[in-house]
Amino acid sequence: MSTSIPHPDWIAVDWGTSHLRLWRMTRSGTALSRTDTDQGMGVLTPARFEPVLLDLVRDDLPTDGGHLTVICCGMAGSRQGWAEARYQVVPCKPPGIAEATRVRTADARLSVHILPGLSQAAPADVMRGEETQIAGFLSGQPDFDGVLCLPGTHCKWVHISAGEVVSFRTFMTGELFSLLSDHSVLRHSVASSGFDEAAFAGAVAQALSRPQALAGDLFSLRAEALLSGLDGVAARSRLSGLLIGAELAAARPYWLGRDVAILGESGIASAYAAGLSAQGAAPRMVNAEEMTLNGLRMAYRQLREHAL
Amino acid sequence: MSTSIPHPDWIAVDWGTSHLRLWRMTRSGTALSRTDTDQGMGVLTPARFEPVLLDLVRDDLPTDGGHLTVICCGMAGSRQGWAEARYQVVPCKPPGIAEATRVRTADARLSVHILPGLSQAAPADVMRGEETQIAGFLSGQPDFDGVLCLPGTHCKWVHISAGEVVSFRTFMTGELFSLLSDHSVLRHSVASSGFDEAAFAGAVAQALSRPQALAGDLFSLRAEALLSGLDGVAARSRLSGLLIGAELAAARPYWLGRDVAILGESGIASAYAAGLSAQGAAPRMVNAEEMTLNGLRMAYRQLREHAL
Repeated sequence: MSTSIPHPDWIAVDWGTSHLRLWRMTRSGTALSRTDTDQGMGVLTPARFEPVLLDLVRDDLPTDGGHLTVICCGMAGSRQGWAEARYQVVPCKPPGIAEATRVRTADARLSVHILPGLSQAAPADVMRGEETQIAGFLSGQPDFDGVLCLPGTHCKWVHISAGEVVSFRTFMTGELFSLLSDHSVLRHSVASSGFDEAAFAGAVAQALSRPQALAGDLFSLRAEALLSGLDGVAARSRLSGLLIGAELAAARPYWLGRDVAILGESGIASAYAAGLSAQGAAPRMVNAEEMTLNGLRMAYRQLREHAL
Repeated sequence: MSTSIPHPDWIAVDWGTSHLRLWRMTRSGTALSRTDTDQGMGVLTPARFEPVLLDLVRDDLPTDGGHLTVICCGMAGSRQGWAEARYQVVPCKPPGIAEATRVRTADARLSVHILPGLSQAAPADVMRGEETQIAGFLSGQPDFDGVLCLPGTHCKWVHISAGEVVSFRTFMTGELFSLLSDHSVLRHSVASSGFDEAAFAGAVAQALSRPQALAGDLFSLRAEALLSGLDGVAARSRLSGLLIGAELAAARPYWLGRDVAILGESGIASAYAAGLSAQGAAPRMVNAEEMTLNGLRMAYRQLREHAL
C-alpha cells in the first residue's frame, strides 16, 4: 500500500453532522485520494474524533518525529464536536488559518486545525462549513459582489461584498422536505424519488405568489391524492416546489437584482436554479465540494506562508 | 359486573388514526362510561376492527337475538379503515345517519354504522371526524353563521352558513410542530413542555406580519439558542407562535370579521384563542369531545326516528 500510493503532505477534512470527507493532499494542492464515511459529528462523542481520524491516516503519519498537518472545517468545530472553534461575527472576511482552533491531540504526530464558523447577531444565525466554501469561492473570484446560495439540509443565502460576508440567512427547507416526505401524513402520497419539472415550476410560482398559504397548500397534496389520485412523483415535485418557492419569497431581498451563484450538489442545486430562473434571475452553478476543498487549500497556503 | 353497571342501549365511537374513544350510551343520550385506547386506525388492519370492538362491548351484546347499535365517526371510515364511508362533497349539511355506511360484520349481534367525512374539490381538501363535531355543534346552534376552528394535528377552518358547510381548509400546523420540535435540529433548543405567553404572542405577531419568512425564522430559534442561550420554554412557545401565526395569516379570509368558535382541547385551543384575540377577534371556546358526542347522539336520534 504505502509504496504504491504517494504520501500526502497534509490532510483536508470536511467534518459535518452526518458525514466525514477526507482528502489526502500534496503540498501543491492535488488531492491524492478522497474518503467519504458516515462518521459525522452526529454519531461521535468528542473523544472519538481523534481515533476516527487516526484510523484514516495511520499509514500517512510521519516516522521521523515530525507531524502531519490536518485542516478541518464543519461541525467538528461546534461545542458538541471535537474542539470548539468559536464563531467569527459578520460582517467579516471568511475565516482563514489565523482564526482556526488548534486541537490538543493525544497523538503528537497530528497537528490539527479547525476553521471556525460564522455568526450573525440579528437576525440570529449561524453557519459551520459553508464559510469554507465561501472562502474557496472567493479565492477564485476575489472581486465577487453578489449573493451565494448554498442549498442543503439548511439552505444559506449569503451576501458578499468587498471580500466580506455582509449578512446571511438560513432556511430549514431541506429538513422540512425530509420530515414532510418521510414522516408526515404526506408520506402516503409522495414518491421516494423522481422529478416532474412542470409540477415543480407550478408549485414554485404558487408559493411565490402566496407564500403564507404554505401550511394549507401542503395538506392539499394529501387531499388530491385521496380525491383524484395525484401521482406520487408530481406530489413529490410539488412538495419541493412549495417549500423552495416559499423560501425564494422570503429570500427575495437577497437574490432580486443581484449576481447569484449557487454552490450545491446537482439535484437540489438544479431545483433552486430552475426556481430562480423562472423568476428572471440568471444564477451560475458552482461545484460545492470543489469550493470546500479550495477553502481548505487556501488555509493550508496561509499556514505555510505564516510558517515561512 | 353486568349486574352493577346498567346495559347501554347503543355505543358511540370516535375511531381516529391514533385513538379509539368509545362511550356506552343510554337511549336518552347519557354516557354510562367512556373508554379511551390507542387502538387507532394507524395500528389496525381492516380485519382487526371488529375483534377490537367486540372486546370492548362483549358484556353489552344482546342474548335475545337482537343487535347492539354502534355509531362510529372518524378514520374507521377511510379507505384503509374498517369499511369505506365515501366523502360527502361540500357545500352540504354535515352528514347524518342517512349518509352512513352500514358495516357487514361477522358477528350478527353488531349493527355498525360509520358516518362519512367531507371533501372539497378546489382547493382539494378532506376531513373525517370533524364533520361529526360540526354536526354536534350545529345541533345546539342550528342558526350559527360563522367559522369553526378545529385545532389538532391537522387544524380545520370551516365556514358555516344556513346549516351547511360552505367550505373548509386544513393546515398541517400541529404535525409541523411535532416534527420540528421532536425530529428537526430544533429539538436541541426546544423544551418538551411549558408555555411562555409573551414569547408566543410575539411570535404570532411576527409571523402574521411576515408569514413568508417562516422557514428562516424557524432556524433563528436554533441560532439564538447557540448564540445567546435562548430558554427552551421560550423557544417552544415561539415555535408554536410562528406556526400558528403563519396559519392565522393564511386563514385570515376565514376568521376576519366573522363569528368564530374554537372546538378543541384546552392547551392548543387556548393558544389559537390567544392568537386570534391579539388580532381583535373574539372567539368562543367549545368542548370538542362534547361536540363529537353530540354529533353521534344526533345520528342515533335520526336512526330511531327513521326506524319508527
